[in-house]
Amino acid sequence: MSSAMSPDEIAQRCADIMWPDDHAARGIGIEILAVGAGSAKVAMKVRQDMVNGHGNCHGGFIFAVADCAFAYACNSHNHRTVGAGVDINFIAPAHLGDRLIAHGHARHQGGRSGLYDIEVENQAGKLIALFRGRAARIKGHFFEIPDNAASPQER
Amino acid sequence: MSSAMSPDEIAQRCADIMWPDDHAARGIGIEILAVGAGSAKVAMKVRQDMVNGHGNCHGGFIFAVADCAFAYACNSHNHRTVGAGVDINFIAPAHLGDRLIAHGHARHQGGRSGLYDIEVENQAGKLIALFRGRAARIKGHFFEIPDNAASPQER
Amino acid sequence: MSSAMSPDEIAQRCADIMWPDDHAARGIGIEILAVGAGSAKVAMKVRQDMVNGHGNCHGGFIFAVADCAFAYACNSHNHRTVGAGVDINFIAPAHLGDRLIAHGHARHQGGRSGLYDIEVENQAGKLIALFRGRAARIKGHFFEIPDNAASPQER
Amino acid sequence: MSSAMSPDEIAQRCADIMWPDDHAARGIGIEILAVGAGSAKVAMKVRQDMVNGHGNCHGGFIFAVADCAFAYACNSHNHRTVGAGVDINFIAPAHLGDRLIAHGHARHQGGRSGLYDIEVENQAGKLIALFRGRAARIKGHFFEIPDNAASPQER
Repeated sequence: MSSAMSPDEIAQRCADIMWPDDHAARGIGIEILAVGAGSAKVAMKVRQDMVNGHGNCHGGFIFAVADCAFAYACNSHNHRTVGAGVDINFIAPAHLGDRLIAHGHARHQGGRSGLYDIEVENQAGKLIALFRGRAARIKGHFFEIPDNAASPQER
Repeated sequence: MSSAMSPDEIAQRCADIMWPDDHAARGIGIEILAVGAGSAKVAMKVRQDMVNGHGNCHGGFIFAVADCAFAYACNSHNHRTVGAGVDINFIAPAHLGDRLIAHGHARHQGGRSGLYDIEVENQAGKLIALFRGRAARIKGHFFEIPDNAASPQER
Repeated sequence: MSSAMSPDEIAQRCADIMWPDDHAARGIGIEILAVGAGSAKVAMKVRQDMVNGHGNCHGGFIFAVADCAFAYACNSHNHRTVGAGVDINFIAPAHLGDRLIAHGHARHQGGRSGLYDIEVENQAGKLIALFRGRAARIKGHFFEIPDNAASPQER
Repeated sequence: MSSAMSPDEIAQRCADIMWPDDHAARGIGIEILAVGAGSAKVAMKVRQDMVNGHGNCHGGFIFAVADCAFAYACNSHNHRTVGAGVDINFIAPAHLGDRLIAHGHARHQGGRSGLYDIEVENQAGKLIALFRGRAARIKGHFFEIPDNAASPQER
């Protein structure tokens, strides 16, 4: 049927539904660059209110940009999903004015739990942090999925 | 000599030097409740710009309040120290208006690396997150330490 | 009723059922010292086949002794439970002939997922490793629980 | 000069020096399949003494095979290096008779600390575990490096 949605179209639809509700992501200046089935890419500029007096970005904001990519990636299958935990490693500092890009994808998505690897890089492609997020599905969907849609998680 | 500083006085002095420089912590409304040798306790109120449309606090801000307690705890020995990595587990959601308390202490502090356990609770004492931070000392001190001061890390 | 089992009696019964099946734990010389509701304490002696030529114990065996304490602690509520993941930090080396003690307890046990903190110490009480295990319940119980038994996880 | 060693030749030499000393790895049946600059691939067969009565491999041995790949990868630059910590996620069970392959490489190697991603798969290529190891260099080299050798860590 012509109405079937591809996994990437489902991912885009989920992001479109999440975004208007995502005041916190917008508050820190997150820009969604791309979403796909199990993947996402977002950007954030390091602002004055994210740095200390030496111009170094707080770890919390490096975490936050990675966490946003994680959230859009793990919610891309039309199952509402929350972050259960994260292991993050800080590799290089980020500075005032840097544009951080966080992107990544599912390494595993089982029935309920998933693992997502997100990398944070700066505008020069330098690796800033490695983030491994643990996702847990909760009840609920973002939208009624057409009967003929193919979702790899529904098998 | 009467001029000797105790480890807790050293910790307080380090915090006093860090705080004016810590624009990011102040920007998210962090309040330093207590610092000691290898420990810290801070608070943060969950604001409108930290939640989604359902009033749930973003993980990034739960991380941030824990990360602040970690920063003040691991920098309390007058050695400049950065966060190398964190394992965080999200246990219960935090909501708009909650006052989150993050407190914790060193589980280990060796010559260069340390491990700090931070708990985040809400105003009712409910456990919100467990955060285990990995600290790495870099070069530098916050202030010239008097010769007769006792620092447990200098042994 | 006099037949009601306490949470600690339930924990002991679960361990009694697990142990005969636990060839691997016996193979590395694990000794169960204590089990309780959400907690366990085990010991392991560092043998010749666990060390390198300098007499230092491989990290895998330090992990293994902690993992055993974790397994008995997280299976103590008569719900079959598996390890979903672990964050371990190695703090000091263990040596040939050391008797390692791993003990710990639940920091959180929700409906399906739990967090357990296990410490590994040597015979002198020196901290060797910190292990934070993530538990996931699967289907099944170890034994039919009497109707009047109190399990804190069943509320 | 013709005597210059490539980074991969240095890695092979380090492994050749480590292996005779590595009683524990040999004790659990580790086979080194390949080593390179910052990478390693090893195998281990799941034996009777590694499983429980249902034939499921203990997590400790899944950890151990990954930890061996990590050890050979992070020691491949002719700097003695130890594991400081690990985040491991168990994804699927391993069974009696499985041949587990652990392989991976450095995601980052700074002056003193490194991050290594190791995957464990079974003989069918099924993902069993994801392991992220944190490496810390200590003093010492495996061999005297020729003056004209190129080591990317020596820059």
